[in-house]
Amino acid sequence: MSTKEITLEALNPKEFIDAQVKAIREAVGDDVAINALSGGVDSSVVTMLGHKALGDKLKTYLVENGLMREGELERIAEIFRGLGVPVEIVDEREKFFAALKGVIDPEEKREKGITQVFYKDIFAKLVKDSGAKVLMQGTIFTDIEETAAGIKRQHNVFEQIGIDPQEAFGYKVVEPLIELRKPAVREVARAVGLPPEISDRPPFPGPALCARVIDEVTPEKIDLVRKATTIVEEELAGVDAFQYMAILHSDQVTGIRDGKRDFGRQIEVRCWDSADAVTATPTDVPFATLRKIADRLTSEVPGVVSVTYNIGTKPPSCIEAV
Amino acid sequence: MSTKEITLEALNPKEFIDAQVKAIREAVGDDVAINALSGGVDSSVVTMLGHKALGDKLKTYLVENGLMREGELERIAEIFRGLGVPVEIVDEREKFFAALKGVIDPEEKREKGITQVFYKDIFAKLVKDSGAKVLMQGTIFTDIEETAAGIKRQHNVFEQIGIDPQEAFGYKVVEPLIELRKPAVREVARAVGLPPEISDRPPFPGPALCARVIDEVTPEKIDLVRKATTIVEEELAGVDAFQYMAILHSDQVTGIRDGKRDFGRQIEVRCWDSADAVTATPTDVPFATLRKIADRLTSEVPGVVSVTYNIGTKPPSCIEAV
Repeated sequence: MSTKEITLEALNPKEFIDAQVKAIREAVGDDVAINALSGGVDSSVVTMLGHKALGDKLKTYLVENGLMREGELERIAEIFRGLGVPVEIVDEREKFFAALKGVIDPEEKREKGITQVFYKDIFAKLVKDSGAKVLMQGTIFTDIEETAAGIKRQHNVFEQIGIDPQEAFGYKVVEPLIELRKPAVREVARAVGLPPEISDRPPFPGPALCARVIDEVTPEKIDLVRKATTIVEEELAGVDAFQYMAILHSDQVTGIRDGKRDFGRQIEVRCWDSADAVTATPTDVPFATLRKIADRLTSEVPGVVSVTYNIGTKPPSCIEAV
Repeated sequence: MSTKEITLEALNPKEFIDAQVKAIREAVGDDVAINALSGGVDSSVVTMLGHKALGDKLKTYLVENGLMREGELERIAEIFRGLGVPVEIVDEREKFFAALKGVIDPEEKREKGITQVFYKDIFAKLVKDSGAKVLMQGTIFTDIEETAAGIKRQHNVFEQIGIDPQEAFGYKVVEPLIELRKPAVREVARAVGLPPEISDRPPFPGPALCARVIDEVTPEKIDLVRKATTIVEEELAGVDAFQYMAILHSDQVTGIRDGKRDFGRQIEVRCWDSADAVTATPTDVPFATLRKIADRLTSEVPGVVSVTYNIGTKPPSCIEAV
């Protein structure tokens, strides 16, 4: 690892923003840059920095992958348009679900279902059509650490894992946040004018709800886990936690409904206390809140008969199950 | 359902015991009776009633199915021998694991893996060899209700689901506890001289640890879930609950160990508050206890990286996952 961290203590957000704006302008030159916005704090800050540096020379795309949360795409587009940042929505749902068909292994899901489709099929085309020579990405310091440690292959760290993106996918990558951990990114988010809805947003994985379905991902399963996610996020919004989520298991368990046997689905709820996702402990959520979540999940999400709450730590667990 | 319940309020344990002893003697006559003891409160009371009624004319077998908990078989044999009741241990592990190989569906596990092997292969032979004409069973009132409702097919309610056991397996069935629910059975257990270790024993399913493994059951998985069960039972022994258990999931989840990715196993812990298992709610176990259980499971059970706690109710969940 050659990249050095800028700690939260060492960070001067205003100076950081000025330096990055300058660096982005230098890297892009007379070219056009392109970036994908997911609405997470990382890609949001990159969008703002890029917009500050390049104005109309930055093309920002919101890719509808069919894997995002309820109303998420529309809300993100609304926020950025409100900030004067032009974003374009590209509907690519069919491509993602086609690529995810039959894929069970988590790494293969990320690699085949997300990385390959996103970069090779979708982004490469957007780059070509836009004439952009530079891709801006929201890679942060923790991504490189975990990738280097072999824990998870992130979809946005080509350079760090030794793949030349210029050669591999036909474009150049600029990563303005690569020296920061999440708390520092949030500080920059506030300083760059993003609303708390974005700057304080709990982390959400790159592969989106795809990371919340164990085994094969189908539109039907995404629909179930999306409903579950809405409920879990509503009920845990008031809890002081690092991140919370609903995971749809593949294992089916025995249930009973209207007096008859019902072999149904299980949702696992995770809620983490953590500073930076490197280590994490489960949040001591009031039991009444957990019970309410379980009751809502089993009555509002079709086919769900069982609900669990994660009680293990990271390590040896990870934040996400997939 | 033609069987009528004797409620806990209506029960006079001494009179019940006398009446059943008389009924058993009448049913068995000059024949020999046979029963299988699992160590659960139901089969233990049946053993005591049968022993009281028949003395040496009752043959009691403890079948080693490879699916019981740590040290369970030896401890049960010890208790009954201490009470002057002769019990014989029969090692049939290979037959059970051979029958369970490749079986995934919960009902098929019970039917093919347990019922068929136990009754047709093992018990029918014991009956034949012993010359017994009567099989005593620990069926209770709740079993008939749930079977009639189609929730779960119990392995010991042939008569109730319309199969003539005489015709099907070559013997006659006597079920002394069929009018009682669990709390009444426990009262009778105390009155018939069983120690609290048996009379107050939390329920344990007929298919034993087989019910605690989702998907295919193998000796290796039973070994894992046995270790997990020991830990969960140790840590929850002091909690006032109806029943608690460890369940080994088939789904694998992403973990991290010694800084490296570890795609590992998940254990689900369930602890129920319930009067009779018909309805149940998860116990509000202190969070520190749940955390300790999770830490022990991930450090002491090989391959386990994730632990959850059930927060749903029955219905729509069931007590057991399988």
